[in-house]
Amino acid sequence: MDTAQHTDRDRLPRSIVCPRSIVVLSGGVGGARFARGVRHLLRSAEGEPRSTLTCIVNVGDDMWLNGLRVCPDLDSVMYGLAGVNDAERGWGRAGESERVSAELLAYGVGADWFTLGDLDLATHIARSQLLREGRGLAEATRVLTSRWDLGAALLPATEHEVETRVRVGETETLHFEEWWVRHRAALPAREFVRAGASAAVPAPGVLEAIGSADLVLLAPSNPIVSVGSILAIPGIREALAAAAAPVVGLSPIIGGSHLLGMAAQCLTAVGAEVSAAGVAEHYGARAVGGLLDGWLVDSRDAGSVPRIEAAGIAAAAVPLLMGDDAVTAEMARAAVDLAERMSRG
Amino acid sequence: MDTAQHTDRDRLPRSIVCPRSIVVLSGGVGGARFARGVRHLLRSAEGEPRSTLTCIVNVGDDMWLNGLRVCPDLDSVMYGLAGVNDAERGWGRAGESERVSAELLAYGVGADWFTLGDLDLATHIARSQLLREGRGLAEATRVLTSRWDLGAALLPATEHEVETRVRVGETETLHFEEWWVRHRAALPAREFVRAGASAAVPAPGVLEAIGSADLVLLAPSNPIVSVGSILAIPGIREALAAAAAPVVGLSPIIGGSHLLGMAAQCLTAVGAEVSAAGVAEHYGARAVGGLLDGWLVDSRDAGSVPRIEAAGIAAAAVPLLMGDDAVTAEMARAAVDLAERMSRG
Repeated sequence: MDTAQHTDRDRLPRSIVCPRSIVVLSGGVGGARFARGVRHLLRSAEGEPRSTLTCIVNVGDDMWLNGLRVCPDLDSVMYGLAGVNDAERGWGRAGESERVSAELLAYGVGADWFTLGDLDLATHIARSQLLREGRGLAEATRVLTSRWDLGAALLPATEHEVETRVRVGETETLHFEEWWVRHRAALPAREFVRAGASAAVPAPGVLEAIGSADLVLLAPSNPIVSVGSILAIPGIREALAAAAAPVVGLSPIIGGSHLLGMAAQCLTAVGAEVSAAGVAEHYGARAVGGLLDGWLVDSRDAGSVPRIEAAGIAAAAVPLLMGDDAVTAEMARAAVDLAERMSRG
Repeated sequence: MDTAQHTDRDRLPRSIVCPRSIVVLSGGVGGARFARGVRHLLRSAEGEPRSTLTCIVNVGDDMWLNGLRVCPDLDSVMYGLAGVNDAERGWGRAGESERVSAELLAYGVGADWFTLGDLDLATHIARSQLLREGRGLAEATRVLTSRWDLGAALLPATEHEVETRVRVGETETLHFEEWWVRHRAALPAREFVRAGASAAVPAPGVLEAIGSADLVLLAPSNPIVSVGSILAIPGIREALAAAAAPVVGLSPIIGGSHLLGMAAQCLTAVGAEVSAAGVAEHYGARAVGGLLDGWLVDSRDAGSVPRIEAAGIAAAAVPLLMGDDAVTAEMARAAVDLAERMSRG
């Protein structure tokens, strides 16, 4: 244990009682940073019983590219928790190179808008190989993540191929990644379609994790295409509604904008208000058939707390800017605190 | 045109009349070097009508590795003709790296005996993608090779998956590449089996190329697992027997040993004599149901010429050490000369 970790620990109150089983619903890069914060919180709660962290990760962005199964969000969470992510660039592996992609382009076979890094490519090849051997995506993810001590279990929301598509014209739809990466979300989205969702079921372990959780957290990920695509898998929303654990979300919108990604475009497309309260209302209060027991907004959105509570959702305002793991752990701690306040209330 | 090429040209007699259409039956690395020599000869025959070179390449070593279609011989010939091969190491791409392979091993998914270079990997990914789009291996090869001005058409012997397997025990067989690369051909081979050969047909263009050729050359490749695996595709041996063009081979055995690869182990396994004359007799004279009209042996094997001619095969002894392209072109020229001598006789 290095000194830095000791210092980080000292910033967390010793008295915290950690839930023994935390489930995080997560998108990619933002979800990964949040999951690191939760892990930091759990690891810092010295003397407490060992807690488990399970990340249920969006797979709506997954795609077949050059015959390889690419799972952007699963990979972002895996790389982030493994500490091999490129924090500066914000996505992919640190120390990445693109020799294979350059060759693919020279052959005229690669997609020029989606660059596969060499290290990242190995993940896709390994995953595709595991899938071809007949393993499901959950088991393939377990094999891939077993290489590192992640301190968390990663579960795909589903093993079915449920593709988030963006309707940009009367009938034309694009794969989410094509809209997002290729067009930088510049084409107005009219609708998000989850192709294949109706026939999908949650991946093995997902319903069990939700059912046995002490706390369910919604990462400050994109509420439409990340968390929303998880909720689109039949059975997951029902499991959350029936869960014994409180469901607490963290607003991805701070002062009217999304710091990571393009939630604003997505919220607008579904007619939701681009604000911390708007997202809470989009998810809805569990008491009235929605999702949330609690909602954290950023300190600068403190004014919206009464409106959120009026909607039947316990709310609190705390700093929601994800910084280093210790700073992000404070966000997780605030979510735990809010859940405790609800259980006392 | 650089000075070096002019110098090379000056080493070739101006008077040579090149066949307009040369077909080369080729294995991998040795076949690639020979094909470069043939191309050099054709390009040097200034003032003559443009000749075409078609390489019919062994695919018996092909395999699926991590879900990717790897074609070692097609790639060796493509890289060799493109000039992007690693001449020092003898195989693969020049300037190669192995970042993806290292990651695959870290995931526990890669084969530790077969390293996929990053640049090479792009070829496999591109090919696999083309195959998945429904193209045959011949068309996929055309797309891949179109990136370079190879001065030759590359044809797989077949588009079917015909796998050369090596029987090393009573019943146990290994994929040729596993025997060759993993075990360095150290396990005695009892038999070579072409799994799937009986149902295979020649790739589009193969029979046409043989039928319209002015000269068919057997590269000094492994007579059993390279040329032999091409001949195992039903229809190819028959097309060669019926061809109007003379069929001239170059001995891969020089003074009793094979300079490239491990032909000796393969010849021994099929009960053939490991010598220049032994390989000629293994192929047999076309006049008596075999393959060859002519056979070139190395100068140091000149003593075997009468024995080969007694078997009904025109023979000549010339230096057969493949050096630079100009040196190798002299070997090709000797084969053309031998064919001309036969047509005059």
